[in-house]
Amino acid sequence: MSGNTLGTLFTLTSFGESHGPAIGGIVDGCPPGLELSAEDLQVDLDRRKPGTSRHVTQRNEADQVEILSGLFEGKTTGAPIGLLIRNTDQRSQDYSKIMHTFRPGHADYTYTQKYGIRDYRGGGRSSARETAVRVAAGAIAKKWLKQQYGIQIRGYLSQLGEIPVPFVGWDALAHPDNVFFSPNVEMLPELEAYMDQVRGERDSVGAQITVVAEQVPVGLGEPIFDRLDADIAHAMMGINAVKGVEIGAGFDSIAQRGSEHCDELTPEGFVGNHAGGILGGISTGQEIIVHVAFKPTSSIPQERRSINMDGEAVMMQTTGRHDPCVGIRATPIVEAMLALVLMDHALRHRGQNADVRTTVPVLK
Amino acid sequence: MSGNTLGTLFTLTSFGESHGPAIGGIVDGCPPGLELSAEDLQVDLDRRKPGTSRHVTQRNEADQVEILSGLFEGKTTGAPIGLLIRNTDQRSQDYSKIMHTFRPGHADYTYTQKYGIRDYRGGGRSSARETAVRVAAGAIAKKWLKQQYGIQIRGYLSQLGEIPVPFVGWDALAHPDNVFFSPNVEMLPELEAYMDQVRGERDSVGAQITVVAEQVPVGLGEPIFDRLDADIAHAMMGINAVKGVEIGAGFDSIAQRGSEHCDELTPEGFVGNHAGGILGGISTGQEIIVHVAFKPTSSIPQERRSINMDGEAVMMQTTGRHDPCVGIRATPIVEAMLALVLMDHALRHRGQNADVRTTVPVLK
Amino acid sequence: MSGNTLGTLFTLTSFGESHGPAIGGIVDGCPPGLELSAEDLQVDLDRRKPGTSRHVTQRNEADQVEILSGLFEGKTTGAPIGLLIRNTDQRSQDYSKIMHTFRPGHADYTYTQKYGIRDYRGGGRSSARETAVRVAAGAIAKKWLKQQYGIQIRGYLSQLGEIPVPFVGWDALAHPDNVFFSPNVEMLPELEAYMDQVRGERDSVGAQITVVAEQVPVGLGEPIFDRLDADIAHAMMGINAVKGVEIGAGFDSIAQRGSEHCDELTPEGFVGNHAGGILGGISTGQEIIVHVAFKPTSSIPQERRSINMDGEAVMMQTTGRHDPCVGIRATPIVEAMLALVLMDHALRHRGQNADVRTTVPVLK
Amino acid sequence: MSGNTLGTLFTLTSFGESHGPAIGGIVDGCPPGLELSAEDLQVDLDRRKPGTSRHVTQRNEADQVEILSGLFEGKTTGAPIGLLIRNTDQRSQDYSKIMHTFRPGHADYTYTQKYGIRDYRGGGRSSARETAVRVAAGAIAKKWLKQQYGIQIRGYLSQLGEIPVPFVGWDALAHPDNVFFSPNVEMLPELEAYMDQVRGERDSVGAQITVVAEQVPVGLGEPIFDRLDADIAHAMMGINAVKGVEIGAGFDSIAQRGSEHCDELTPEGFVGNHAGGILGGISTGQEIIVHVAFKPTSSIPQERRSINMDGEAVMMQTTGRHDPCVGIRATPIVEAMLALVLMDHALRHRGQNADVRTTVPVLK
Repeated sequence: MSGNTLGTLFTLTSFGESHGPAIGGIVDGCPPGLELSAEDLQVDLDRRKPGTSRHVTQRNEADQVEILSGLFEGKTTGAPIGLLIRNTDQRSQDYSKIMHTFRPGHADYTYTQKYGIRDYRGGGRSSARETAVRVAAGAIAKKWLKQQYGIQIRGYLSQLGEIPVPFVGWDALAHPDNVFFSPNVEMLPELEAYMDQVRGERDSVGAQITVVAEQVPVGLGEPIFDRLDADIAHAMMGINAVKGVEIGAGFDSIAQRGSEHCDELTPEGFVGNHAGGILGGISTGQEIIVHVAFKPTSSIPQERRSINMDGEAVMMQTTGRHDPCVGIRATPIVEAMLALVLMDHALRHRGQNADVRTTVPVLK
Repeated sequence: MSGNTLGTLFTLTSFGESHGPAIGGIVDGCPPGLELSAEDLQVDLDRRKPGTSRHVTQRNEADQVEILSGLFEGKTTGAPIGLLIRNTDQRSQDYSKIMHTFRPGHADYTYTQKYGIRDYRGGGRSSARETAVRVAAGAIAKKWLKQQYGIQIRGYLSQLGEIPVPFVGWDALAHPDNVFFSPNVEMLPELEAYMDQVRGERDSVGAQITVVAEQVPVGLGEPIFDRLDADIAHAMMGINAVKGVEIGAGFDSIAQRGSEHCDELTPEGFVGNHAGGILGGISTGQEIIVHVAFKPTSSIPQERRSINMDGEAVMMQTTGRHDPCVGIRATPIVEAMLALVLMDHALRHRGQNADVRTTVPVLK
Repeated sequence: MSGNTLGTLFTLTSFGESHGPAIGGIVDGCPPGLELSAEDLQVDLDRRKPGTSRHVTQRNEADQVEILSGLFEGKTTGAPIGLLIRNTDQRSQDYSKIMHTFRPGHADYTYTQKYGIRDYRGGGRSSARETAVRVAAGAIAKKWLKQQYGIQIRGYLSQLGEIPVPFVGWDALAHPDNVFFSPNVEMLPELEAYMDQVRGERDSVGAQITVVAEQVPVGLGEPIFDRLDADIAHAMMGINAVKGVEIGAGFDSIAQRGSEHCDELTPEGFVGNHAGGILGGISTGQEIIVHVAFKPTSSIPQERRSINMDGEAVMMQTTGRHDPCVGIRATPIVEAMLALVLMDHALRHRGQNADVRTTVPVLK
Repeated sequence: MSGNTLGTLFTLTSFGESHGPAIGGIVDGCPPGLELSAEDLQVDLDRRKPGTSRHVTQRNEADQVEILSGLFEGKTTGAPIGLLIRNTDQRSQDYSKIMHTFRPGHADYTYTQKYGIRDYRGGGRSSARETAVRVAAGAIAKKWLKQQYGIQIRGYLSQLGEIPVPFVGWDALAHPDNVFFSPNVEMLPELEAYMDQVRGERDSVGAQITVVAEQVPVGLGEPIFDRLDADIAHAMMGINAVKGVEIGAGFDSIAQRGSEHCDELTPEGFVGNHAGGILGGISTGQEIIVHVAFKPTSSIPQERRSINMDGEAVMMQTTGRHDPCVGIRATPIVEAMLALVLMDHALRHRGQNADVRTTVPVLK
C-alpha cells in the first residue's frame, strides 16, 4: 500500500488535493445493513468546516459530501462506499507568490524532494483539507459503533497554547458560541481573548485535543504490533500537525510508581484508569483516553527565512487564509480517526474470535 | 494481517511466548547482497538481555539467535530470514500461584477476555520477552541502513522516574558501568541510588527513552496515513509498557508559537529541528528525534487488589524476577523499532520514486 | 482489506454499482512525473464500452472518466489518482421483475446470502460494469510500463464458443469492422454469423481471451506466494465470468514430457516459451502469455428454473440488454489486469532490488 | 509484503531453503481454542513426504514438524503458531556441478537475474521443498474448517501425462499401494507402468490434480478482487510447477452455451455445478471444485542445452534425486492451499458479516 489507505478490514482510502477538483475516498469493509445517508456524514463535516468563526480560516467550502455507492434503499450493502466532496473555493491565485519557495514548517520542501514535483497550490496533497474525507468516513464508523456497542466518541480542546482547559462537562460542547470545542464554557472569553491576541501578533499557537471513547467492549486490539494503542497512535500521528500522542497517563507515567500507575481490579471494576482503557494493546472495557498534541500553524503572516527552488536564501510571508490554531478545528478529525481504528479492530476481533465465550465477569 | 507482522515491504512477523519452547520471527523483503551473520544480531540482543545488572530482571536467558534461512555464503539472498531464539530459563512453576488471578497492570485480563484463554506462564504472548525478536530483526535493518545511507540509530535514557537525564554525549553509552543507557556518566551514581531506593520500596518506576537517527535521507515517508512519524508512533506504541510517543518538540509544541516552532530554511540548512526531522510525514534529512514514555513495571512485590477468574476479590503479589524499570532495558528495542520503520520506508520510497531526480539542493 | 483493492505498491481500490450514481476508483502508488490525462484512459474505455455493435449489450454509457486528483500540470504527482465515471443509463425499471428472484448463473443468490441484501438493480456491485474502472486504471499502468520499459500489452479473442481463432497478426485488431478483437480478419464473417446464430437461439456462449506482454524485463515477481503468475491468476480469475487461467502451455503441459516442455537456454535466447515467460514465479524476459476462459453469459432470454426470496420454485427469463458473449468486450479488461499486476511487480521489484546489478547476460 | 505471506486474516508466512538448516513458517490469526498438536500436522506432511515409492524423489527427509508457539494446554491461544522443520538430508555436494549453470525449466536464471545471487543448493528458496510448510499450515486450517463447518477437503490425481484418471471413489485413496493419489484403484497398474516407462526414457511428465471442498457454507469470498475463486487461483498458481487453474467447468465453459452452463436453482438445490461452487466470487454452498495443471518436472537425466553464468553455451544434465512427476506428491499441497484460502475467507467473512441473518433458504 502506498500510504493512502488506513485499516485492515474496515478501510479508508483517500484521494484529493486542496486545490484540485475534488477530494474523496472509499470506505471498504462496512458491514451491510447500516442505515446511512449523506446527512449522517454532513453533521461532522459541518463541525470541521472552515469559516465558522473569526478564529479559523476564512476559506469558504461547503464541504458537501456525496455518497456514490455502497447504499441500497438507505442501507449499506457491504460494497465499498464512495465519497466525493467537490472543492468549490480553490482561489489558486492566492498561492502564486510561493510557487518557487518552500514555506517553513510545511511539507513543501519534503514533498518536492520526494516526488520531484512542487504542487504549490495550497500544499496540494499535504493540505489539511484532506482531513474532511476522514471526518466523513469516521462518521460512518461512529454510527456503526454506536449502534453495535453503544460506543460514544467525543473529543475536546484540553489545552490552547499555554492555557490548560480543564474538563467541566460534555454539555459545554453544545454551547452555541463554543467554536473552540472547549469542555468549559466559562473559559470561552479567555480563549477568545487569547486567540485575538495571537492573531494580533501575527502568530499562531498549538493545542492539545483529548478524545474519549466510552462503552468500548473489552477485547479489541491485535497483539503484537497492531495493538489498539499502536493503531491509535498511528492514526493520530497521521493527522496534519500532530507531534505527540498519549494513551491514558501518557508521559506522566514516567514519573509514576508502579504502585500508583497500575490500576487495581475489584469486582466493582478497575480502580482508576491510568492505562487509558488499554492493557497489553487490548481494550479493557474502560474509557479509552487519548491526548494529541498539535503544533502551531506553520502559516503565519510574518516574514521568515527560507530558500527557493534553486536553494537561494529568500524572505517569505504566507498571506493566505489560515487557521491561527489548527487544533481548534481538529476535534472532529481526532474523533474520526479514533472511530476508524475502533471499527477496524471490532471487525478484526470478531474475524478471529467470534466464537470466544468466557465466563470471566466483565468489569464495569 | 493479525497483528504480528510489522511493515509493508520490509516486514517482521513474530512468534513465541515467554515460557514456550522458543521465540522467533521472519524478516521478509531484505535486499540481497547484505553481509550478515548471527553475530551481527547478537550484539544488540546482548544489549537487551536480562541479568546484566541488579537493576534488571535476573532471568537467565542466553538469547542466542539462530539464522535459519535467507543467507548464502554469508550474504542475504532476498529470501525471508528465519530467526530462532530458544527459551532456556522458563521456570514456569514460578507462575503457578497466579494461574487464576489477573495481575494488575498486565494483559492477563484483556487477553483472557479476548481469547478465552489464560496462558498464565509469565504473560505468555504478552511478555516483553518477545521484544528480543524485534531487536534481532532491527539489527538487520540497522546494518543495511548504515551501509546504504550511513544512517546511525542510537537511543538513550532521557528520564528515569522523576529524574531528567540531560544528554552529554554518546560516548557515555560505552562506559562499562553504564547499565542504564544513560548519556551522562556523572549521573550514574544518582541513577543507581535511585533504583536501589525504588527496589527497596518494593516498587517500580517509569522512564523515557529518546532515540535519534542521523543521516536519514530526505524523502522517506508515505502520505497520508503511513507518514514516517505515524509509522514510528505505531511501532513505538507497539512496545510493551509504552504510553506516549513524541516526534521532535512533541507536547511542548502545544505552547509554542508558530514563529518559534517552525524551523526556517536557509542555504546552510534548517534553523532548528522542532520538527524532529519530519515534515508532512516525510523525512527532512535532519536528525529524526523520538521520545518514548514507558510506564512503571506492573509487576511489583506488593500486595494489590485484583480479581480471580470467577470475578471474586483477591489480594495478590507478583514474586517473579522482574525489571523494576522496564525502560532500563528498552533502549535497544526502541532503536530496533525505529530501524525497522526506516528500512521499510526506504524500500517503499524507492519502489515508487526510484527515478525521481531533483535539482533542489539538499539541505545539510 | 475487504476485497476491493488490488496490488501491494501500485494499487487500485474500486467502488460503484451498475445502477448507482457512479463507479470509480483510486489508483495509489503511481510514480510521479508520468504525463497523464483523461484522454489516455478514454482510449481503452472506448474499446470496452457497450453499444458498439449488435453483438454486445445495447446499454448506452458514455463511460466518460474524470480524473479528480493526483495530477499537476499534466503530470502525476505521486499522490493518489481519483477516477470517476458517472452512470448515465441506469434504467433501473428494467430490473423490477427480478426483484425477488435469483437469476441462474449470477451472483444474486450468493450476494444475498452473504450480505443479507438483494440489490436487484442490474447485479449491483457484481455487475461487469465495474470493470470499466479497471480498464481506466490499467491504462495508467500501460502508459507507465510502456515508457519505463517499452512493455506492450495486447490481448485478442483466441476462441469464440467452439471456434478456435488462430492468431494471424496484431494488425487485424485495427480493422474497423473487428468488434471481436479477433487477430484474424478473414474469420470475421464466420464470427459474425456464429454470434447471429447464438443470438437467434436466444442463447449465449463463452470465449477465450489471450493476452501477451512484450518487453517485460527479467526479474519481476515475488516468490513464494506472490509469484508473478500467481498474481496474474488472481487478477484474471477476479474478472467477472472467468473460470480458468493458464500461463504459457497451461493445461497442455500435463501431457507434455519434460524434454519437450522445458525451454532450453542458449546464448541466443530461450528455445521456446512453454513457460509463458515466467519461471519460478519470476519473469524470464520473454513474452508473458496468458489464456483466460470466460463462461457464457448467464443472462439469456430463455425461461429458466429458479427460486424466489422465499425459496419457492419460479420460472424466470432475463430480458435486459446483455452481451450474448461477455468475452467479446473482455479484451481491454484482460489487458488492464495484466498491466496492473506488472506495474505493481515492477515497483515491488525495485523496492527490494533496486541495487542489484548482475553480470549474467540478459537473454533476448 | 514481500511475497512470502499468504492470506489476510488467517496468514501463513514461510521461510527456508532446500539446503539450509531448516524450513518453517508462522501461522497467524488462528482462532483460539482449537485442539492442536504436531501429530495433526504430521499426517499430511507424511502424505507429501519424499521417498515413499520408486515413483518419487528418493531424498530422505523425516519432515518432522515442531510447533514452537501458539499452543497452551493443547489448544491454540490466538497467538501466532511457529512451525519448524529441520532439513536433515541436504547433501549439497550433489549440486556442485551445476553451480555456474542454469538448469532449463528451473528458476535458476530468473532468481539470479532478480537477486544477483545464485544459490545453487538444490534451487534454494525456489525448491518445492518449501511446500512442506504449506502442508503443515494447511493441516491447521483443515482441522478448524472441519470442526467449524464440517468442511472436508480432498484432492486426487485426475490426469497423469496423457492418461485421464476417472474418478471412481474417495475410498481408492486409502488403498495401501496407491502412491499416486489415484481415485481409481483399477488404474494403478497402468499408472505404475506408465511412470516406469517415463523414468526409463529418462524423462518426466505432467499431471492434473483435482481438489474438492465439501460442506463449504454459502457466502465466502470478497468481491471484487479477492473473490474466492481469485484467491484460490492465486494460491494454486503459487505452487511450484503449476501452469493452469480451473474452477468448475473451467476451460470447457468456453464452448458451452449459457443454457447449458448456468446452473438452474430449484428448491431442492442447484441443478448441476458447472460453476464449481462459486458465483460472483462467492461460495454457493455446493462443492468447490478446482483443477490444477502441473508441468512435467524440469529436472531430467538428459543432456540439455543451457548457458553458464558468463552466458556461454553449455550442455548439462541434472542428476540429483528428483520426482519424475511432481504432480504425484502434489495432492496434499493442493489440499493445503485450498484449506488456507477457505479459512482466511471464513474469518474475513465473519469479520464483516457476522451479524447477517437472512430468511432466504439455504440450498442443499
